[in-house]
Amino acid sequence: MLSPEEQLHILESGVDSIVPRAALLDKLKKGEPLNIKLGVDPTAPDIHIGHAVPLRKLRAFQDLGHRVTLIIGDGTALIGDPSGRNSTRPQLSREQIAQNAQTYVDQAFKILDKDKTTLVYNSEWILGLGMEELLKLLSNFTVARILERDDFTKRYKGGLPISLHEFMYPVMQAYDSVVIKADVELGGSDQLFNLLAGRELMEKMGMEPQVCLTLPLLEGTDGVQKMSKSYGNYIGLTDAPSDMFGKVMSIPDSIMIKYYRLASTVPVSEIDALEAGLADGSVHPNKAKRALARNIVEAYYDAEAATAAEADFDLKFKEHGFPEDAPTYEADLTPNDEGKVYFAKLLADAKAAPSTSEARRLIDSGAVKLNGEALPAKSYNLTPEQLKGAKIQVGKKRFLRLV
Amino acid sequence: MLSPEEQLHILESGVDSIVPRAALLDKLKKGEPLNIKLGVDPTAPDIHIGHAVPLRKLRAFQDLGHRVTLIIGDGTALIGDPSGRNSTRPQLSREQIAQNAQTYVDQAFKILDKDKTTLVYNSEWILGLGMEELLKLLSNFTVARILERDDFTKRYKGGLPISLHEFMYPVMQAYDSVVIKADVELGGSDQLFNLLAGRELMEKMGMEPQVCLTLPLLEGTDGVQKMSKSYGNYIGLTDAPSDMFGKVMSIPDSIMIKYYRLASTVPVSEIDALEAGLADGSVHPNKAKRALARNIVEAYYDAEAATAAEADFDLKFKEHGFPEDAPTYEADLTPNDEGKVYFAKLLADAKAAPSTSEARRLIDSGAVKLNGEALPAKSYNLTPEQLKGAKIQVGKKRFLRLV
Repeated sequence: MLSPEEQLHILESGVDSIVPRAALLDKLKKGEPLNIKLGVDPTAPDIHIGHAVPLRKLRAFQDLGHRVTLIIGDGTALIGDPSGRNSTRPQLSREQIAQNAQTYVDQAFKILDKDKTTLVYNSEWILGLGMEELLKLLSNFTVARILERDDFTKRYKGGLPISLHEFMYPVMQAYDSVVIKADVELGGSDQLFNLLAGRELMEKMGMEPQVCLTLPLLEGTDGVQKMSKSYGNYIGLTDAPSDMFGKVMSIPDSIMIKYYRLASTVPVSEIDALEAGLADGSVHPNKAKRALARNIVEAYYDAEAATAAEADFDLKFKEHGFPEDAPTYEADLTPNDEGKVYFAKLLADAKAAPSTSEARRLIDSGAVKLNGEALPAKSYNLTPEQLKGAKIQVGKKRFLRLV
Repeated sequence: MLSPEEQLHILESGVDSIVPRAALLDKLKKGEPLNIKLGVDPTAPDIHIGHAVPLRKLRAFQDLGHRVTLIIGDGTALIGDPSGRNSTRPQLSREQIAQNAQTYVDQAFKILDKDKTTLVYNSEWILGLGMEELLKLLSNFTVARILERDDFTKRYKGGLPISLHEFMYPVMQAYDSVVIKADVELGGSDQLFNLLAGRELMEKMGMEPQVCLTLPLLEGTDGVQKMSKSYGNYIGLTDAPSDMFGKVMSIPDSIMIKYYRLASTVPVSEIDALEAGLADGSVHPNKAKRALARNIVEAYYDAEAATAAEADFDLKFKEHGFPEDAPTYEADLTPNDEGKVYFAKLLADAKAAPSTSEARRLIDSGAVKLNGEALPAKSYNLTPEQLKGAKIQVGKKRFLRLV
């Protein structure tokens, strides 16, 4: 077993916050397996590597000898849609919840060590909670404290309704921590409030309080928005290996180390070295990105699939005659009133043409290719959809990939 | 049975508000017995005629043929002290609650018609409420709506804690109305919010909503502060007949009609006539007050006890040589920095002496009596305690009772 300090170094790689950090070190110093909690809502069954970030961190705890309690929030899910005003019926039926939970768990065990995971459903203790016990629980919280939660504050101040049952959510999540006697609870950075509610409740009930560990949201392949199905920038756990590889290769260099820390299985010491190498120029970003893409494919498939995916990726680039290490350019793709982006100016801004007027001339002469196809004359304005992630070639030697 | 309009006239005698009034008339027009709800907390077992005001109104409903459901809030009582911050235990034990409830009911049946009363304990349905049902109930309310309750608003704005379990109180009280299918709920004027919550919940659940009928607080015998044990201005239901009679006789004339409407069994038509008679001077206030005192003693004891109490009252006045119809004077008894009231000036203000200096002279000459005892010279300043309710005689003929 590693020393507490070494464990902490591994565990805090990529995290948003550990509250309080010193308490986690104290817990690690006991030298006993800790009980790490993650609660998940059985609502979105298809998970992507953004959703998988806390699962990767749980796995890091497991690899250090700790135990995980994965709570399927089938009880809390009955609280339903937080923005629903008069939802007299919960959003999901029990059958739907059970099915979603199973789909989630099947995917989660691609990452977690099954032998070190206890799987529980919080309906077990939440649905049986009697009124007297509930009132005692509620008496541990004040209205003002719960209203401090960011989204509640905003809605209250903005005059938007908060249904009273929504106030039960943080209380029930906190109660989960009491029931399973959590040492550490993980969550997204937007979950810090709920995690702290658990810590406070445990303290008030005379228990050793849990440590709250939050993880940042992972940006999608565009490097800007959070990874989400609705933005079309996600990498699904069940994506085909070559899709997965290609998507990882398309992320901007700027978020590569974040992906390493939050979405790969590469040891933290290697990531630290890689980060230093990228900073001092001794490691080429493209080489690091290839290694990342291979690692991620290997994590969800195997080494063979990763090799095949990489070969497939190379083949595609050769066909397009486009260099894989072409510089990326983060273009502002905000359209004008006609829904277009002034592409000629974009080329000048990206230094792919000396000026906007020169860019127009190059376009008219057929010297500008978009994804391997020469643009017709007068194609000065293009849609954001045409430009997003586009591979651009100007003349024979200038290459550019828009992100 | 009286017409709906005649019934409404009787029922609205002395009330603070009926929300909505038209809906009560519509319900009365159905010609069927209505279900009138009163919920009581089994916390204060000794009740006085101030507490009894809603019971008298319930009795008025019963006398018109309607039924009463008296809810002992032994379930809601578990919510405990509203100002308690971290009360992990409810304030009252189950045994205490049961005992208090019995004491309350014994007293309530001095007023209510037992045959037209259904007695229920809300622990029956509140303690068995499951989490799913509770969440559905809560989803009918918004946080902002509950925070509108006066005391909650004040505490929230003042930064004083509101425990989350306190928010359950109006919800549970509203749920009581749903369970018993109330047509009308009665309460003090400070209960209007909770009563309206019941009305709203019934509407949201597709039921015919209850009408809210609120009653004003009854002032105590001082005519200023609300009747309360802690102000020492109360008339207890179990007070001895002669105490009860004397206390009623001590109230200021200004609140006599209010007492008639809220605390007596005198028919509303007679009270209306009496009020007119007092206004045009055809009825002497003292005569009306005697009739009121007799009525109230008779209501809790019998005619014989009332006659004896009146005789006892007369005897005491004869002994003091103080006329029972002495004018009352509402004195400002705010003390100065030394805790005294300038009594000589008070006498002048009350027209019992021509001027303050003349009053001082009268005191010095031993011509001023306080409760039958001549005051010593230089007694220009007295304490509020000495003066409260005092019987004052100046010379042979001037009498004054301070209220």
